[in-house]
Amino acid sequence: MNFNYTEKITSLQDKLNAFFEEHILPIEQEVSTFNYSAENRWKRWPGMDDLKAKAKAAGLWNLFLPKSYGDLSPGLTNLEYAPLAEIMGRVLWSSEVFNCNAPDTGNMEVLAKYGSPDQQKQWLEPLMNGDIRSAFLMTEPQVASSDATNIETSITLDGDEYVINGRKWWSSGGMDPHCKIAIVMGKTNPDAPRHQQQSMILVPMDTPGLNVIRPLSVFGFYDSPEGHAEIVLENVRVPKENLILGEGRGFEIAQGRLGPGRIHHCMRLIGMAQRSLELMSQRASERIAFGKTFKDFSSIRQEIAQSQCEIEQARLLTLSAADKMDKEGNKTSKDLIAMIKIVAPNMALNVIDRAMQIHGGKGVGPDTPLAHFFVAARMLRLADGPDEVHMYQLGKSVINKHAKIKI
Amino acid sequence: MNFNYTEKITSLQDKLNAFFEEHILPIEQEVSTFNYSAENRWKRWPGMDDLKAKAKAAGLWNLFLPKSYGDLSPGLTNLEYAPLAEIMGRVLWSSEVFNCNAPDTGNMEVLAKYGSPDQQKQWLEPLMNGDIRSAFLMTEPQVASSDATNIETSITLDGDEYVINGRKWWSSGGMDPHCKIAIVMGKTNPDAPRHQQQSMILVPMDTPGLNVIRPLSVFGFYDSPEGHAEIVLENVRVPKENLILGEGRGFEIAQGRLGPGRIHHCMRLIGMAQRSLELMSQRASERIAFGKTFKDFSSIRQEIAQSQCEIEQARLLTLSAADKMDKEGNKTSKDLIAMIKIVAPNMALNVIDRAMQIHGGKGVGPDTPLAHFFVAARMLRLADGPDEVHMYQLGKSVINKHAKIKI
Amino acid sequence: MNFNYTEKITSLQDKLNAFFEEHILPIEQEVSTFNYSAENRWKRWPGMDDLKAKAKAAGLWNLFLPKSYGDLSPGLTNLEYAPLAEIMGRVLWSSEVFNCNAPDTGNMEVLAKYGSPDQQKQWLEPLMNGDIRSAFLMTEPQVASSDATNIETSITLDGDEYVINGRKWWSSGGMDPHCKIAIVMGKTNPDAPRHQQQSMILVPMDTPGLNVIRPLSVFGFYDSPEGHAEIVLENVRVPKENLILGEGRGFEIAQGRLGPGRIHHCMRLIGMAQRSLELMSQRASERIAFGKTFKDFSSIRQEIAQSQCEIEQARLLTLSAADKMDKEGNKTSKDLIAMIKIVAPNMALNVIDRAMQIHGGKGVGPDTPLAHFFVAARMLRLADGPDEVHMYQLGKSVINKHAKIKI
Amino acid sequence: MNFNYTEKITSLQDKLNAFFEEHILPIEQEVSTFNYSAENRWKRWPGMDDLKAKAKAAGLWNLFLPKSYGDLSPGLTNLEYAPLAEIMGRVLWSSEVFNCNAPDTGNMEVLAKYGSPDQQKQWLEPLMNGDIRSAFLMTEPQVASSDATNIETSITLDGDEYVINGRKWWSSGGMDPHCKIAIVMGKTNPDAPRHQQQSMILVPMDTPGLNVIRPLSVFGFYDSPEGHAEIVLENVRVPKENLILGEGRGFEIAQGRLGPGRIHHCMRLIGMAQRSLELMSQRASERIAFGKTFKDFSSIRQEIAQSQCEIEQARLLTLSAADKMDKEGNKTSKDLIAMIKIVAPNMALNVIDRAMQIHGGKGVGPDTPLAHFFVAARMLRLADGPDEVHMYQLGKSVINKHAKIKI
Repeated sequence: MNFNYTEKITSLQDKLNAFFEEHILPIEQEVSTFNYSAENRWKRWPGMDDLKAKAKAAGLWNLFLPKSYGDLSPGLTNLEYAPLAEIMGRVLWSSEVFNCNAPDTGNMEVLAKYGSPDQQKQWLEPLMNGDIRSAFLMTEPQVASSDATNIETSITLDGDEYVINGRKWWSSGGMDPHCKIAIVMGKTNPDAPRHQQQSMILVPMDTPGLNVIRPLSVFGFYDSPEGHAEIVLENVRVPKENLILGEGRGFEIAQGRLGPGRIHHCMRLIGMAQRSLELMSQRASERIAFGKTFKDFSSIRQEIAQSQCEIEQARLLTLSAADKMDKEGNKTSKDLIAMIKIVAPNMALNVIDRAMQIHGGKGVGPDTPLAHFFVAARMLRLADGPDEVHMYQLGKSVINKHAKIKI
Repeated sequence: MNFNYTEKITSLQDKLNAFFEEHILPIEQEVSTFNYSAENRWKRWPGMDDLKAKAKAAGLWNLFLPKSYGDLSPGLTNLEYAPLAEIMGRVLWSSEVFNCNAPDTGNMEVLAKYGSPDQQKQWLEPLMNGDIRSAFLMTEPQVASSDATNIETSITLDGDEYVINGRKWWSSGGMDPHCKIAIVMGKTNPDAPRHQQQSMILVPMDTPGLNVIRPLSVFGFYDSPEGHAEIVLENVRVPKENLILGEGRGFEIAQGRLGPGRIHHCMRLIGMAQRSLELMSQRASERIAFGKTFKDFSSIRQEIAQSQCEIEQARLLTLSAADKMDKEGNKTSKDLIAMIKIVAPNMALNVIDRAMQIHGGKGVGPDTPLAHFFVAARMLRLADGPDEVHMYQLGKSVINKHAKIKI
Repeated sequence: MNFNYTEKITSLQDKLNAFFEEHILPIEQEVSTFNYSAENRWKRWPGMDDLKAKAKAAGLWNLFLPKSYGDLSPGLTNLEYAPLAEIMGRVLWSSEVFNCNAPDTGNMEVLAKYGSPDQQKQWLEPLMNGDIRSAFLMTEPQVASSDATNIETSITLDGDEYVINGRKWWSSGGMDPHCKIAIVMGKTNPDAPRHQQQSMILVPMDTPGLNVIRPLSVFGFYDSPEGHAEIVLENVRVPKENLILGEGRGFEIAQGRLGPGRIHHCMRLIGMAQRSLELMSQRASERIAFGKTFKDFSSIRQEIAQSQCEIEQARLLTLSAADKMDKEGNKTSKDLIAMIKIVAPNMALNVIDRAMQIHGGKGVGPDTPLAHFFVAARMLRLADGPDEVHMYQLGKSVINKHAKIKI
Repeated sequence: MNFNYTEKITSLQDKLNAFFEEHILPIEQEVSTFNYSAENRWKRWPGMDDLKAKAKAAGLWNLFLPKSYGDLSPGLTNLEYAPLAEIMGRVLWSSEVFNCNAPDTGNMEVLAKYGSPDQQKQWLEPLMNGDIRSAFLMTEPQVASSDATNIETSITLDGDEYVINGRKWWSSGGMDPHCKIAIVMGKTNPDAPRHQQQSMILVPMDTPGLNVIRPLSVFGFYDSPEGHAEIVLENVRVPKENLILGEGRGFEIAQGRLGPGRIHHCMRLIGMAQRSLELMSQRASERIAFGKTFKDFSSIRQEIAQSQCEIEQARLLTLSAADKMDKEGNKTSKDLIAMIKIVAPNMALNVIDRAMQIHGGKGVGPDTPLAHFFVAARMLRLADGPDEVHMYQLGKSVINKHAKIKI
């Protein structure tokens, strides 16, 4: 047991922080303002490709893909990548610069792990190069998709093609002009056992019948240029080779996809929370009311102390989950992964909310990243499974573990 | 002591509810969609004037102005108006239909109570008729405006005119094309005792030097058409008759302005929370996961039970504050008014957040009023004084009250 | 709607407060110390009978019994009694002085409402006179008694007698040397429909086979002289006339018994919380740390402000429940009664806990009533049904109410 | 970074767990019952010395003393001892069996670090052997001792003796018949700078003038046989050699004493919480209400899932603090030590409270360790500095750290 980062990690942190100092922070507000303005909606900030090239040149590229993937991977474990994801979380739009943004990361993992050579050639390569983006079409408006067995989209074999029908929403990234490919979850085998009914299939975004109905706003944010799309699939036909892994294996793929993604999300949330704490500390050291600087109010110190405690705990928990995943794999780590998925978004919401409050009106407006952080964190109490589902399964697992122990 | 609404109130509730059923609810989503769309920003929904005429014809007009104002008032007490404000809170854009929307209500009270006959003729009449709208320019970006003595905008007499210089933001309503007049808080007497330095002055929105710099978003919402404006006042000149009540009386006016406004805000929050509870109950009775309808999960029942408890308590507290204001005036009621200002927004946030969570992705998107409710409630933990200021003053008052009692 | 106490109430409050000032507060600590000392355990403080005589003489006697009971009642409604119960809650051992202490109050209501003339003559009269005390034997260690259908004690007719077998615990009052009679809940008709299996029966404490096994401590408190008894009933025989109301009517009696008792408990909790707030305010105005009086720390003001808000809300909710019970009866008021039962103990725990913390070590020790208040409030999250049961039923009721409304 | 226990630790855990299985758990309730009974108050459970001998024989003795103490120490680091302290926390009275109980551990550290050879010979040896026990006299009833500069007990040199006058309370261990020595904090130099006024001095418990006034109960528990004493020191005279380290060095000693003690307390709290979680899980898997086993209620699963998350986070935080102390010393680790002192007691209270609630009446009574756990944890929100003091200092430190960073 050892709570210090290795030198490998600290030197990567230094490098990434330096990149942020030089290339990201100076233009943070400019990019955000571009993304927020109605006239630029669904356009990409023009400097993005240049930034990506710089990150690639600096070797800060695809860091998310664990070394277990061999040559495809830049060689980090989950535990080594986690502190870097934390840094990326500090600026909402920055992950793409390093080709480390959801949902592309998860989609790349799926293709790297389960994709056929052809699928990899056609879609994984350009994704790894950052030339295109992708979407993941899972959630459906008509059913409680938190119970994934509810999902109703049909994928039916017809000759050499699969025909897909259904309605999906909250397909993040689906509005991006670079988004070229979607992974769609649906039912191929409605009569099979509950967890073998589903499959995943690759659907190019320009396939006829795939219609983006509208972008969804989240608390008023549109998250341009990626966006969150509502998509209707109406008799969408793709070659049968587009199926991933095989019929009825959708759940298996979904399980494999989620573990690392949750580490990433949670570490980014920790980055958001950490930065919020820093912003709140700075604000507290500057503002004056009733004859006192904010930092001399005990209530403000309490909020900052509480935030520090909550952040550090969530960080350790997430790192320990990454460590366990590296050592024992995703499946054995499932309780710990559920734990971070429950803890991190709620922790971040608490910290960010306090930071907003200390900032007064500025805190809910467009001049700090706080309000957008809050919405991103709130979204993550729902995305990849709502808190309640994780608690339902974790609670069951803990009870079963202890039910028989004599104490 | 009696906890039943009088017949006068229940018949007004019935009337207002009927108006909602007939005229508001059927077009709720249509108006919201109009207001949210980027192309309609700062345009008024075209049917609004027609709706206002209907409400006026139905006698549902200016109900907010307490009977203590005599002929100007439709004759309700604060206690009688409160349950009607609750109903208006159920649809975010509905208050304007009844000419009961902030900040106009507060501005009308100021003019009715402290305005000169000329000021009333020129500005109060068209406001009471719903022909124009208004803004209240108080908060400044450079200082902690929660301590209003910090406010720095200068109002300097120069011959027959006052010259105004300063920067204001979060001026709600300031983006509305109908907004014609602003009440500006600033310093006329910087050397006077702390609470006699400030004055309020009327500034027509088209006065040269009053420049609307930008609209502020709140968590991504622009709240079109009213908006929240950042405004720079640069050598703005108005006739000295535009001063309200007299130099150095700004605090006195501010105090008088806030009591009823807080009742209104709190009752609207209770309406938002109540509606969220109803939406959440309906969702719970429909959705199914893991083989059970949501309503049969004990955790969901707990959230709904807790919400019911919190709403009813906040409602009673707010009604009791209204009753006390009617009987004993704003000043004696200040602790109780502080209490509702602390309680109602936080209660509403709790309830709305639970409702969002039960709705899944739909809850944070544009298809229910929940996300916008949440943002409105969050804003009210800051607007009209952040929680912390109210607790700071209420805490002091309670301690002083009990410090000497022998118990 | 009117939030002021009537003159009838305020004059009773004045009278009761005066009695406290003169007779209770001066000896509060003396009586507590007597009750806490190991050598006096299960002995009654010698001055109690004298105090009771004084209260009776002052007309402060049996105030709990609602005027609906006619001549037996001193003539107060639930709404009128509630503020008096609040005052009694301020000193833990004081309710008995006024013959208003649980479980005797509930038992007296049962006998007054459902008892036969003989049962009333034998047991209700001495209870109303304060000559004896009583216990209520409901909860059983082997089953989740929160679901009362689980209760297993058997009551079997054998000739002219009922034979009772079972094990009960948390029989409050059962250790008191004056405790002469118990009301026992058990199954007479195990094959009847679920809510018609149970009956209630009167069992004198000295009946052979009724064995008090041990007193139960609550967080280390024994609550002498009443105590909480574990009792084994082994072939206990009583005349069949001791059955109350009739076989299978236990649930019906239990329902009728609980409403007013919950009002009493909740108002006493509000009294405990209110007094804790006053103690905390006094402490805050006296203690000094880091160069400041506690009351000048914003965090302490926040805790006091929050406490004030929570207390006042719970008070209004409880009073509104009392009002509804008076006007519409126990059954219609069941949701509101569930609400106060959920709200009041948790509110009290929050407030008392803050008060303890501000008192430092003194707060958890024997020199203030705070620690005992805390334990009493904690007990009431379980007694008369745990929070979870009330939320389970209230949540269901709220969902059903709103499930069909079009909004 | 590595989140696995070393083999050294896991083998010690196994050994200690085995000792618990064989020697502690079978008699847990017997010892508790002995300690709770009024007739045994201030008597030691007769089997204790035998148990201690067994632990000593097994090499499970004085494990708390870090290896930095050289030959005195059994050779564990703080990080290695921490998981063992967690196990000891599972049974409240068990730490003494291993000579690892507060306040003796802290007193032994003080003597080992700062004691003169004579002081060590006379007091440290018998303490390390477990032959005697000790008390630490710090807190005073008259002042807010959380700000230790407030402490008023005077220590005045008079010839070859120091004369001590003052009143202390919450002197844990002070009631134990084996308690032979006290370390007393007081003022030798009232005119020195604030942090150089205080000294620590050794006072044998049988010194004339040292009068134990009374035991203090905590929520009704007396914690026999150690107890919490109120002690008056009236012209107590001890040889001047009894002063530890030198005049004016009391704060320095206090700082050095607290770090490891907090790790121990926090790990024991984690043990209490962990055991509560296990008890709660077992209860949940057995009890039935409304036709369902508790474990199938989603609300109960949520409580168990939340508890698991909170425990694991607090555990990692505490272990990381131990690691930092080992590597960088107490002083550099002060923020992290403050963090665990804030986090662990509150976490434990939350978990234990949920466990009590699931146990119903049993949970607050004498048949499980839960109620006593709760009280122990509640005490630790005050002992060794209340939460508020730690947050006040931690908050300041965090603000200062971030105030200047450009982000």
